Amino acid sequence: MSEAVDLLINARWIVPVDPHDSVLADHAVAIRGGRIVDVLDQDAARARYVADKVVELPRHVLIPGLVNLHTHAAMSLLRGIADDLPLMRWLQEAIWPAESRHVDAAFVRDGTLLAAAEMIRGGITTCSDMYFHPEAAAEAFVAAGMRAVVGAVTLEFPTSYASDPEDYLRKGLAARDRWQGHPLLGFSIAPHAPYTVSDESFRHVQTLADELELPIHVHIHETAQEIADSLAAHGCRPLARLARLGVLGSNLIGVHAVHVDASDIELLARHGCSVAHCPTSNMKLASGIAPVPRLLAAGIPVGLGTDGAASNNRLDLLQEMRHAALLAKVGSLDATAVPAHVALRMATLDGARALGMDDRIGSIEIGKCADLCALELSAPQYRPCFDPVSHLVYVCGRENVSHVWIDGETRVDKGVSLLHINDTELLRLVSMWQTRLGN
Amino acid sequence: MSEAVDLLINARWIVPVDPHDSVLADHAVAIRGGRIVDVLDQDAARARYVADKVVELPRHVLIPGLVNLHTHAAMSLLRGIADDLPLMRWLQEAIWPAESRHVDAAFVRDGTLLAAAEMIRGGITTCSDMYFHPEAAAEAFVAAGMRAVVGAVTLEFPTSYASDPEDYLRKGLAARDRWQGHPLLGFSIAPHAPYTVSDESFRHVQTLADELELPIHVHIHETAQEIADSLAAHGCRPLARLARLGVLGSNLIGVHAVHVDASDIELLARHGCSVAHCPTSNMKLASGIAPVPRLLAAGIPVGLGTDGAASNNRLDLLQEMRHAALLAKVGSLDATAVPAHVALRMATLDGARALGMDDRIGSIEIGKCADLCALELSAPQYRPCFDPVSHLVYVCGRENVSHVWIDGETRVDKGVSLLHINDTELLRLVSMWQTRLGN
Repeated sequence: MSEAVDLLINARWIVPVDPHDSVLADHAVAIRGGRIVDVLDQDAARARYVADKVVELPRHVLIPGLVNLHTHAAMSLLRGIADDLPLMRWLQEAIWPAESRHVDAAFVRDGTLLAAAEMIRGGITTCSDMYFHPEAAAEAFVAAGMRAVVGAVTLEFPTSYASDPEDYLRKGLAARDRWQGHPLLGFSIAPHAPYTVSDESFRHVQTLADELELPIHVHIHETAQEIADSLAAHGCRPLARLARLGVLGSNLIGVHAVHVDASDIELLARHGCSVAHCPTSNMKLASGIAPVPRLLAAGIPVGLGTDGAASNNRLDLLQEMRHAALLAKVGSLDATAVPAHVALRMATLDGARALGMDDRIGSIEIGKCADLCALELSAPQYRPCFDPVSHLVYVCGRENVSHVWIDGETRVDKGVSLLHINDTELLRLVSMWQTRLGN
Repeated sequence: MSEAVDLLINARWIVPVDPHDSVLADHAVAIRGGRIVDVLDQDAARARYVADKVVELPRHVLIPGLVNLHTHAAMSLLRGIADDLPLMRWLQEAIWPAESRHVDAAFVRDGTLLAAAEMIRGGITTCSDMYFHPEAAAEAFVAAGMRAVVGAVTLEFPTSYASDPEDYLRKGLAARDRWQGHPLLGFSIAPHAPYTVSDESFRHVQTLADELELPIHVHIHETAQEIADSLAAHGCRPLARLARLGVLGSNLIGVHAVHVDASDIELLARHGCSVAHCPTSNMKLASGIAPVPRLLAAGIPVGLGTDGAASNNRLDLLQEMRHAALLAKVGSLDATAVPAHVALRMATLDGARALGMDDRIGSIEIGKCADLCALELSAPQYRPCFDPVSHLVYVCGRENVSHVWIDGETRVDKGVSLLHINDTELLRLVSMWQTRLGN
């Protein structure tokens, strides 16, 4: 007796990201109502299911959709506007002036659309975003059909977007209220960083996050300078200050965590915090090497983030997987650090855990949302293939992504993006911004 | 009065790799007899030249063909056969057993064909190779139409290929004699490493390299262990030993140079040696971070190498450019280290200098061979574009390579490889080897 499903995907390999690091050969995923209803052998699938649509992926590996745990999506419009500069000159001479002249709701909507198109095309199905005008970012993610956790950003200094910390939060949470219940959108509270947010604001963030059950998304310990400044201003390291303020908890995602000592790691572990590791950004801005093997050994969930396109230039989580593996090895002088399966888990299930969404996304498991990514490994440069997970991390690029599904809906089909906005229209928007920014 | 040329390429941007870090907008390259005869404004080119063929690249950047200064091409057949292992376990448990069971002339020919197809498709027009059976590698490079400097490898221990150091050199140099005068092929002498080659053999290498005017291609200072072992066995560091043996000179290309102190850098600089930097391999094998900014400051030409596909997995010099820039920044904690133009020069002109070929290749200059690579920057993920050189290093991948010319001959046309061996045939060969290696 056959059972009806919407979609059946037959793949050469399926990597579900489970505790056994399984690689399932010639298996199928059955999807109904946007959910995964079965993962089984292809012969068994043919016998058990009648599907409205069958997708054959005979030279492909199917993985969970990638989770980009930290980005500033709208900064895609500033891609490559300044490089090869020290952090403070980069911020003060390039990024901040451009932002203060140009960032408004339209900039954020268009930049977020560009970033969403790039991310989806590269197999990223969920991102955790932090930027001004979260209401405009939310609109763009919904328009693109991308799952996102939008940060209600806050900081002490005024911008054209908001006048003070309360104003930032009020505006961000209004966006949350507007999109309440949307299947693809969630919100976090995003205090920018310990050095831009006061004790009082952190206490307010903590109260709101508790009340509303939201993640807290905050940059922490990115540079050595940040630690020194905190010691001077507060008499303790930033993480110790956040602990004292009661902000550390299992809902906190600390971004970067490059300069963390044993006491910092103990704090993060004890409070159940997660880390968003951004290896490319940390290298490009010369921030340093996060001690990922030690964070993982302490049981801290470590997801991966691209950071914004101004400090990485490429919103590509396949690149971040490779860089996480490579940087951990050279940073610890241990070639066994962050092996391929661990890098893949960081880019999927650990990111979902950090966001408190691992009951819904992050692995190919019965009952979870059908957020999926297929990569084709047929060209000569991907052969031979002894282990598809090794290839995912050490050989593939986002150019291998052939299919993407979000909530069971096709977003990329045989390498072609299916967004409501076509490339021509998107390029027209971007050209307009490039002209403005270039002047 | 118009002048006849074979080919005129009109490109949105041309980056010739010159001392001024020029980026030429809307320029053209004129080619006749495989040589660059002019680089000029497109309007002037239309007035001056009548071309048999005109290629329009309106959304592309044209750069010199990339020079892969260090690879073991045939190891492409061992791509991903073992990862995430410490160097000695990786060699002793995976690589050496596979090599001793399987490496013969057919393995080297087929593996080199696979690697050449991958490299050419990714914009690499010249490589410097080191492996067993150089006669088979030479055959494959000629068949693929790729410019290569093939290493006549030598080491102390016997293999199925050769019985002793003299035998290795005799066989390698016989291959050189056979291909003498071929426009695309050159040879080097490739003593494997200080820890596998005796003093006597190094002296012989030096004599031959002098007589025959060949580069010396040798691994040096890859691991800390190598230095410690040399101190114990020879009472000095490996580079000091090579200096004592008279091997250091402007024809020497030292591969890796990760563990180099001030005395090593002084030796390399004083003798005019070059370095082949392999950032991905150094990260993946946890060898360490080569002090590239200090090598460059000492005036040492530093080119880029992919190393073999068993320790990098992807023979992609665009990746190596990005990794060279990123690793130098995080390694020196200086975001200004190895800026984009420097990374591009390392991947082109500096590699050519190291090989003593900068009179013929490495830049887009009148009189040089037409070894060229075009990358298309039209998709949304490459926009905006404020600086095409920044995009080459921080955004692009080999997937952007649209056209490749070697000696003026088209090798890749609109993303399609034009090799004598098609992908189907190549994949058939690789499948056969995968089956053998998997058993």
